Amino acid sequence: MKKTGILIGAILAILLAGCSNKSSNSNNSSKSSSNGYQITGNSSSDQYQNVITNGRYLTSKARGVGISQNSDNLLNLKSFENGLTQLSKTKYSPNNYIFREGQLLSSTTVEKWLSRQSKSNSLGLNPESNGQTDPNKRNPIYVQQLEEQDYMKQENGKLVLSGITIGIGMNRKDYYQKEQYGATYTTDISEAKMIAEGRQAAVKVLQRLRSSGKVANNVPIMIAMFQQASNDSLVGGSFYSYTYVKSGSTINSWQSLNTKSYILPTTANTSLPNDNDETSFESFKKQVQNFFPNLAGVTAQAEYNNKELQGMHVNITTQFYSETEITAFTQYLATAARNYLPSGIPIDITVKGSDGDIQSFLAKTAKQSTYYTHVFSSY
Amino acid sequence: MKKTGILIGAILAILLAGCSNKSSNSNNSSKSSSNGYQITGNSSSDQYQNVITNGRYLTSKARGVGISQNSDNLLNLKSFENGLTQLSKTKYSPNNYIFREGQLLSSTTVEKWLSRQSKSNSLGLNPESNGQTDPNKRNPIYVQQLEEQDYMKQENGKLVLSGITIGIGMNRKDYYQKEQYGATYTTDISEAKMIAEGRQAAVKVLQRLRSSGKVANNVPIMIAMFQQASNDSLVGGSFYSYTYVKSGSTINSWQSLNTKSYILPTTANTSLPNDNDETSFESFKKQVQNFFPNLAGVTAQAEYNNKELQGMHVNITTQFYSETEITAFTQYLATAARNYLPSGIPIDITVKGSDGDIQSFLAKTAKQSTYYTHVFSSY
Repeated sequence: MKKTGILIGAILAILLAGCSNKSSNSNNSSKSSSNGYQITGNSSSDQYQNVITNGRYLTSKARGVGISQNSDNLLNLKSFENGLTQLSKTKYSPNNYIFREGQLLSSTTVEKWLSRQSKSNSLGLNPESNGQTDPNKRNPIYVQQLEEQDYMKQENGKLVLSGITIGIGMNRKDYYQKEQYGATYTTDISEAKMIAEGRQAAVKVLQRLRSSGKVANNVPIMIAMFQQASNDSLVGGSFYSYTYVKSGSTINSWQSLNTKSYILPTTANTSLPNDNDETSFESFKKQVQNFFPNLAGVTAQAEYNNKELQGMHVNITTQFYSETEITAFTQYLATAARNYLPSGIPIDITVKGSDGDIQSFLAKTAKQSTYYTHVFSSY
Repeated sequence: MKKTGILIGAILAILLAGCSNKSSNSNNSSKSSSNGYQITGNSSSDQYQNVITNGRYLTSKARGVGISQNSDNLLNLKSFENGLTQLSKTKYSPNNYIFREGQLLSSTTVEKWLSRQSKSNSLGLNPESNGQTDPNKRNPIYVQQLEEQDYMKQENGKLVLSGITIGIGMNRKDYYQKEQYGATYTTDISEAKMIAEGRQAAVKVLQRLRSSGKVANNVPIMIAMFQQASNDSLVGGSFYSYTYVKSGSTINSWQSLNTKSYILPTTANTSLPNDNDETSFESFKKQVQNFFPNLAGVTAQAEYNNKELQGMHVNITTQFYSETEITAFTQYLATAARNYLPSGIPIDITVKGSDGDIQSFLAKTAKQSTYYTHVFSSY
């Protein structure tokens, strides 16, 4: 079953992206047989290679469902998918596994699962409507999004499904209309209720996958639980727990996760887990926002695991009057970021003009102390 | 005169950005005295450091004039300013000179010079109106834009003006209205006429600068002539000649330049100076545009010096349905670009979603064989 799980024929041409010191290796990427699979090169050792079939990316069988589920706040989709891939790396190392977009669950299946239970949909993971429209009396939608990721190994020239990750996005706030195009109301869901409903959904999903005939009993399945951010949030939601089921259909335990994202500058009602990070950011902001006679807007997203800062995305917007101003500002930012922003974490800085177009960009990895800089130019 | 040209008082704090292997050097950038000048760190050895005064960038005395002169095609401004800085590097090495935005010519001065001669404006570099409105009978506007760049040296703790570059943008097409808010007409200007008018303007600009009392006689002045691209062009214009006047007010000779920018894919009426580059681009395009079931748009700007390709800016637009698709596409591009795009030149690739937002970005310098990649993410 393991080897027959996903049969792929023909030649498997592996594209090696190579590390930055290797020289280019002619035109590997053109080696594609009529039925063949290819694998994209990985641009760094901590990224997955991906499956290409007949020169085309093998997209998810449920492609696009995530966007419709998160249409009110697409940051949830970004956080969800990035987090899911990061979590998967703890179980399926990019050195040994190849990423494949989910091929087991189709759009139709996922849409059915995410709907309410009803006479026509026994598979719904959300409760039947009780006919109420009052926020506190109605049955809310608990399970908001669901995504499958497949992790493959190469065996005898074939790609074999060797691990699965399922992400389940849960609501703390369920937005609904009493009538089409009407006002939006909100049902609040307690954390305890969200966790309980999520665990029930996870049990069902695991059993359905195992009994689908598409997954061998010994293929591990990780299920990760995500709390959706509210529609007005400037950061996406975060994963709060996961389970890793090596085989079988029983969930024995849940590991909790404590990642959370914040927006800087913080508001009166919020504060960062670590005050020093806020001070660093404020110093940086002060340093750069008066660089030009016109003020620059400086905000950031910061991600924490427990009390520890994991990374930052900094956004800067200002009005530029010349290319030389953009270049000078970017150089100045490289120095200011090094001097004021926290070290030892990945940080990127995006600089936009008043029209919203990106003008320059700076980034460092956790290990780097200086920033890579790029000014977007034109001939 | 040389030392009094631009007097700057107080402390000169130099911020060293350092190369990527040096570790961060505390908070140099906070050392700014009340009247002090600072210099931004240069993020690489081929970029100029810039002048900061009282913690603020020293903007041009004619700030914003370039934007109003080029409002119909801002690509002209980008090409003009980038080209001017590049040309300056051939005379004023970034290792020895510091860039300062033009401080000699004010907005008022530049605007007067760019206007027509008239009773109230004897300084106009463009001819008096002859009252005609017919495209072939009227006197067109020849001189469209003008910009000053200053190059400084540090001497005894002061910044001393040690070189000037003046860029002059000339029209081949002069767009005008016969009445306010009316239809736009065009007067075509021959290449010979453009060159002749440009040389006359350059003579006047040189003499005015020397006699202004603001520039020592032995401060070199480079004057670079730029041909504006038409309003509908997808690339900016290019520099066609320059003169470098070490001292005095006489122009003895002009050096011609043969840089030109192209858009790829080329149209039926245009072709690249080198067919191989077109083949490379077409192969790359074909390879990436079918990566997803939906088609990706692939275009590029290419710059040539004579028949030699100097660099490319590649733009790719496609619709993404997930973060994992963006990551996979970016990895694939890194391989495809290495295999198909020309080597030995700087290339950057910008990937945008169907909403126009940047999703990822790849770049290499002339010397690098592999691409730096960055996916724009969100927490």
